[in-house]
Amino acid sequence: MTFLSKAILPKGFKASGVSAGIKRSGKPDLALFYSEIAAKATCVFTSNKIKAAPLKLDIRLLKANKPFRAIIVNSGNANCFTGAAGLKDASAVAGYLAKELKIKPASILVNSTGIIGKRLAVDKIRSSVPKLVKSLSKNGIAQAKKAILTTDTFTKEAAARFSIGNKIVTIAGVAKGAGMISPDMATLLVFILTDADISQGALKSALKESVNNSFNLITVDGCMSTNDSVMLLANGAAANAAITGGKDLAIFARALNSVCLGLAKMVVKDGEGATKFIEITVDKAKNENEAKKAALAVANSNLFKTAVYGENPNFGRIAAAIGASGIDVSEEGLKIKVSPLTKKEIKVNCVINKGKAKATVYTTDLTPEYIKINAEYN
Amino acid sequence: MTFLSKAILPKGFKASGVSAGIKRSGKPDLALFYSEIAAKATCVFTSNKIKAAPLKLDIRLLKANKPFRAIIVNSGNANCFTGAAGLKDASAVAGYLAKELKIKPASILVNSTGIIGKRLAVDKIRSSVPKLVKSLSKNGIAQAKKAILTTDTFTKEAAARFSIGNKIVTIAGVAKGAGMISPDMATLLVFILTDADISQGALKSALKESVNNSFNLITVDGCMSTNDSVMLLANGAAANAAITGGKDLAIFARALNSVCLGLAKMVVKDGEGATKFIEITVDKAKNENEAKKAALAVANSNLFKTAVYGENPNFGRIAAAIGASGIDVSEEGLKIKVSPLTKKEIKVNCVINKGKAKATVYTTDLTPEYIKINAEYN
Repeated sequence: MTFLSKAILPKGFKASGVSAGIKRSGKPDLALFYSEIAAKATCVFTSNKIKAAPLKLDIRLLKANKPFRAIIVNSGNANCFTGAAGLKDASAVAGYLAKELKIKPASILVNSTGIIGKRLAVDKIRSSVPKLVKSLSKNGIAQAKKAILTTDTFTKEAAARFSIGNKIVTIAGVAKGAGMISPDMATLLVFILTDADISQGALKSALKESVNNSFNLITVDGCMSTNDSVMLLANGAAANAAITGGKDLAIFARALNSVCLGLAKMVVKDGEGATKFIEITVDKAKNENEAKKAALAVANSNLFKTAVYGENPNFGRIAAAIGASGIDVSEEGLKIKVSPLTKKEIKVNCVINKGKAKATVYTTDLTPEYIKINAEYN
Repeated sequence: MTFLSKAILPKGFKASGVSAGIKRSGKPDLALFYSEIAAKATCVFTSNKIKAAPLKLDIRLLKANKPFRAIIVNSGNANCFTGAAGLKDASAVAGYLAKELKIKPASILVNSTGIIGKRLAVDKIRSSVPKLVKSLSKNGIAQAKKAILTTDTFTKEAAARFSIGNKIVTIAGVAKGAGMISPDMATLLVFILTDADISQGALKSALKESVNNSFNLITVDGCMSTNDSVMLLANGAAANAAITGGKDLAIFARALNSVCLGLAKMVVKDGEGATKFIEITVDKAKNENEAKKAALAVANSNLFKTAVYGENPNFGRIAAAIGASGIDVSEEGLKIKVSPLTKKEIKVNCVINKGKAKATVYTTDLTPEYIKINAEYN
């Protein structure tokens, strides 16, 4: 398996990205991922009870288990907390695209990201769809990856290549996310495309596991978005022997996991206002769930995060966060090690001495810049 | 019942505060609350699994249910995460004071607040205890309330007076707390003194209820301290007919609650770096627990808190926080109202439409100054 830091589109896929005028800045804000042939889809969505309108639409479509052809995404507006009108708007977007691509609206997944609680400018999308479709290309991911960003300061892409028999399979992913990042699941949009021929069941289980081992291990601010989605399309264009389980699924899952973890770490590195990338490991916990709970408690502690920002080795705050996390821990059993805080990448190692389980999570420091970004965002 | 904004010591109590040199600033850092006669004690401590050494000592003493005479508190050092040595240090402090006051060490409650993970300078405390005892006076609460502060910018005191039969009873309390403020319980130290004659059971139940209705409803940063304590001494010097239940206990509880809620709101107003005081009410929730959970989710959302700081009415962040809180809620049922953000005191009203329960919590905005304070604190 080869890990690539560039997202090269798998066989049978095209992409594009344009400026539709939803963002006041005039930056790209409308992206399209398109499969030339029928593709299987599987998605993981936010567990937030307040879900964005496009997600509600997608959840309904995914239940039908029909083939998919495209994902259309706008940034600059989340189309969330917008009621029945928001649902109508999301359907309208799928309708415009279906007409232009001459495919069924039910074969299109819709997504949105940006401000919550405002109506989506569907007219701007309608008038931009022809241009969006026209600019579809094998290299279009370079535009698409920009059009999905909000407060991100850089684009996020990753890919993996591997062989099933004598066929080369590609998995490529792009992500957006910088704030409102917290499990479950991490607050971001991720679009992954693969030309693997794979069964629906194998695809679903591989994505679920990969998300648990990547996007569910990162936190920037402990805030959960209403629009989080990881969407995966598999169109089978690699013409490999269909993956249904066993060794082939293990290879696919490993490659998918490397793409997801790569993207997840990029999201943390682009954490709003972040000056540090922090890796927190909790070891010798009673079980994996407790290890993760303790590590996330540290990762979400404003006091710990400000101490790292200040390069102030205030280890007591780590102990306090773990003690408050609700897991089984005693002062006597707890050992804490922190790498030098003057570096850009920080490692925190906590040993609980209650069992054998281990978990690692990723986060950033909390800085005045985070506050500035979020105090002014609108 | 009369609520007083000044803490006048109840009958039979004295207090004092001195500079022992634990704080590098030279500010007062050693406080003493003393009852001339035997007093009943009841305490509520942090639920953090990592508890400070003095709290461990106190918990042991409180089990014996013997009369208490004094509370000694230092600021500048939490004596927490200090192992067996920390326990020895806490005992030593009680020993020095017992000798000077000629009372039993087991009649003394010890408390500490400040940095976690460093040994307490017990020698400095030993050499300051004679001066501390010598300066005990009926007006000494003016010094004691200063000596318990850490990052606080003002002292916090409240009192209530009421009659039981023809006897006047006083409840007076002082508090410290500005950061690491979160239920359960709110991260702070509170010392409450009353001359009420009251049974141990009534005292305990009244304090528990008051803490739930005050300190457990406030949050500054969602971080839970290792040293949180509310300590209440009742010495019976008011010579009222002993309170054991019924109408008299209701009067006592109401007065105690007014003192606790008064102090709790002061802690929020002094929240580290805060520029706003925010009252969040969640109404028509399925039950009180869900109402509180949703309100606290909003209160602990960094995105909501930065939006208030920026006077940026980004209501979607309130919806996102409630949706992620784990309670039963739907977009259709959720109504949000926020008072003008340009004011210093902000009211947020969320109606869930799932039942009849209601809860109100108190918090602050999140500001660059909070980060500055906590990045530099050591």
